[in-house]
Amino acid sequence: MTIPADATLSDVGEFGLVAALGERFHQGGAVLLGPGDDAAVVAVPDGRVVVSTDLHVDGRHFRRDWGSAADVGHRVAAANLSDINAMGGRATALTVGLAAPADLPAAWALELADGIAAECSLVGASVVGGDLTGADQIVIAVTALGEIVGEPVRRSGARPGDVVAIAGRQGWAAGGLAVLARGFRSPRTLVEAYRRPEPPYAAGPEAASAGATSMIDVSDGLLGDVGHLADASSVAIDLRTDCFEIAEPLRAVGAALGMDPLRFILTGGDDHALVATYPSATGLPSGWTRIGEVAERGESVERTAVTVDGRAWEGPTGHLHF
Amino acid sequence: MTIPADATLSDVGEFGLVAALGERFHQGGAVLLGPGDDAAVVAVPDGRVVVSTDLHVDGRHFRRDWGSAADVGHRVAAANLSDINAMGGRATALTVGLAAPADLPAAWALELADGIAAECSLVGASVVGGDLTGADQIVIAVTALGEIVGEPVRRSGARPGDVVAIAGRQGWAAGGLAVLARGFRSPRTLVEAYRRPEPPYAAGPEAASAGATSMIDVSDGLLGDVGHLADASSVAIDLRTDCFEIAEPLRAVGAALGMDPLRFILTGGDDHALVATYPSATGLPSGWTRIGEVAERGESVERTAVTVDGRAWEGPTGHLHF
Repeated sequence: MTIPADATLSDVGEFGLVAALGERFHQGGAVLLGPGDDAAVVAVPDGRVVVSTDLHVDGRHFRRDWGSAADVGHRVAAANLSDINAMGGRATALTVGLAAPADLPAAWALELADGIAAECSLVGASVVGGDLTGADQIVIAVTALGEIVGEPVRRSGARPGDVVAIAGRQGWAAGGLAVLARGFRSPRTLVEAYRRPEPPYAAGPEAASAGATSMIDVSDGLLGDVGHLADASSVAIDLRTDCFEIAEPLRAVGAALGMDPLRFILTGGDDHALVATYPSATGLPSGWTRIGEVAERGESVERTAVTVDGRAWEGPTGHLHF
Repeated sequence: MTIPADATLSDVGEFGLVAALGERFHQGGAVLLGPGDDAAVVAVPDGRVVVSTDLHVDGRHFRRDWGSAADVGHRVAAANLSDINAMGGRATALTVGLAAPADLPAAWALELADGIAAECSLVGASVVGGDLTGADQIVIAVTALGEIVGEPVRRSGARPGDVVAIAGRQGWAAGGLAVLARGFRSPRTLVEAYRRPEPPYAAGPEAASAGATSMIDVSDGLLGDVGHLADASSVAIDLRTDCFEIAEPLRAVGAALGMDPLRFILTGGDDHALVATYPSATGLPSGWTRIGEVAERGESVERTAVTVDGRAWEGPTGHLHF
């Protein structure tokens, strides 16, 4: 079906758009019944489905002038696929709800779909269903389904003595965000890292089979999310800054903006790196880097159980949603 | 945890609200890992999960002055649970995303959660996860997961000669909506039907085991949704108005508003009745009423394949989303 380049959602209508979207979503082997009915049916052979949902709001989680619709599609899909990854699972299916003003260009919605489909193809997941409706503001609701082998890796299993490790880039998207927020478009590598994060999709299942005791994906900020893990596990965690290699573009942006580049790494979110803990005797799988260790939780710890080089971190630790 | 009666979402904060919500959601037997981690894990013993997602936008799908937050919770949960029902499945888990302005009373969000939990309890489903974020307008994203026995009942299986049947109330919610839209609050039974639909949750699995050839839930309007079923099955469907018993409150509202009460039945949505087709030799399960029959699709049929008493229906057939 051909949709004119200047058509809006209201011109094309719900059913026209659904038809055009359907053509864009390849259905993989796990899909027993794809889009077009009251519900989809997805295979999860071992009888357990992993599920996670996220909302993405225009002007808060993304800005249309900071990247293409395809970039937004990559971003929103990556955020949910990463949640499945952080359980040690593999995503197989997504549902996507789009609430948007009637005057949104239909081409934007279709390009969004292309971005979502392309990100899904990285892990072999399919978009199996969704919903379209009018709203004053664009809100994209993504739910990811997946499968796991063995037990899910929770946030609550870290034990004193464990090693804390990270997989994936960390701080790059925050560096890109800082650049974009000031009206710049370079360094290109950081801007691209913000627009299209590259979550370490293989690292989650690898951590699970290597015996990780706990895991979380970094979506709200490294210190904040490591704090969630420490709280869930009732432990203290110390991160060592000498473990972090500060990439050249982060140094450059830090110097240009007068900011400590370590701040991007410690408080940035959107890269969807994974943090996991491993028993100290366990060798880390490839792609994982040691960044700290787990200790007993002392009685004096108050607001956060996470320290940096043995001291409390001064300043914000992540993103607040309200 | 106690939240002050006049607190807003911004006062309570994301994590405070998440903690308060967690206490409200009972976790049923299918939940292997509930809220609080990167993703939840739900059992679907036969290895297939049914999934459906919907968005509900303030001012479009619900109005806060037309009912309580608990009513809205019942409505949004019912809409998704009904989608699983319409496949012949049984819902086991929901995820709920809430995007809302920071000044929304926290009590409204908590009462919304109570309504969702109460509706879920009717089918034994659990709220296993979700997301909270700020937005200019309230948008509620619900995804339902479920299980099926045997094959899912699709929209595409209706065959000429089949009987068309309905389960559940139809037109009541539309009658209630017509009343509310004019600023009235009675007849109470219709207003309540709009605020808290009563989908026939047992009817979906019963239809599946009785051999229904196709099924859909009526969410956008009876004629519109029967049209989707006819299109998916490449058949024509004739509905017989003498099969519909027009309930007394619908007659009363029709008379008061100068409207044909049949219009509520033929074009109303929000009751989440089920429409299914059965081979003519199959006895209908209890709770199902014959309302028409399936015929070959003629070549002359254009916009819709659905007729009423053998003639095209003049007027709107359902709800347009843009």
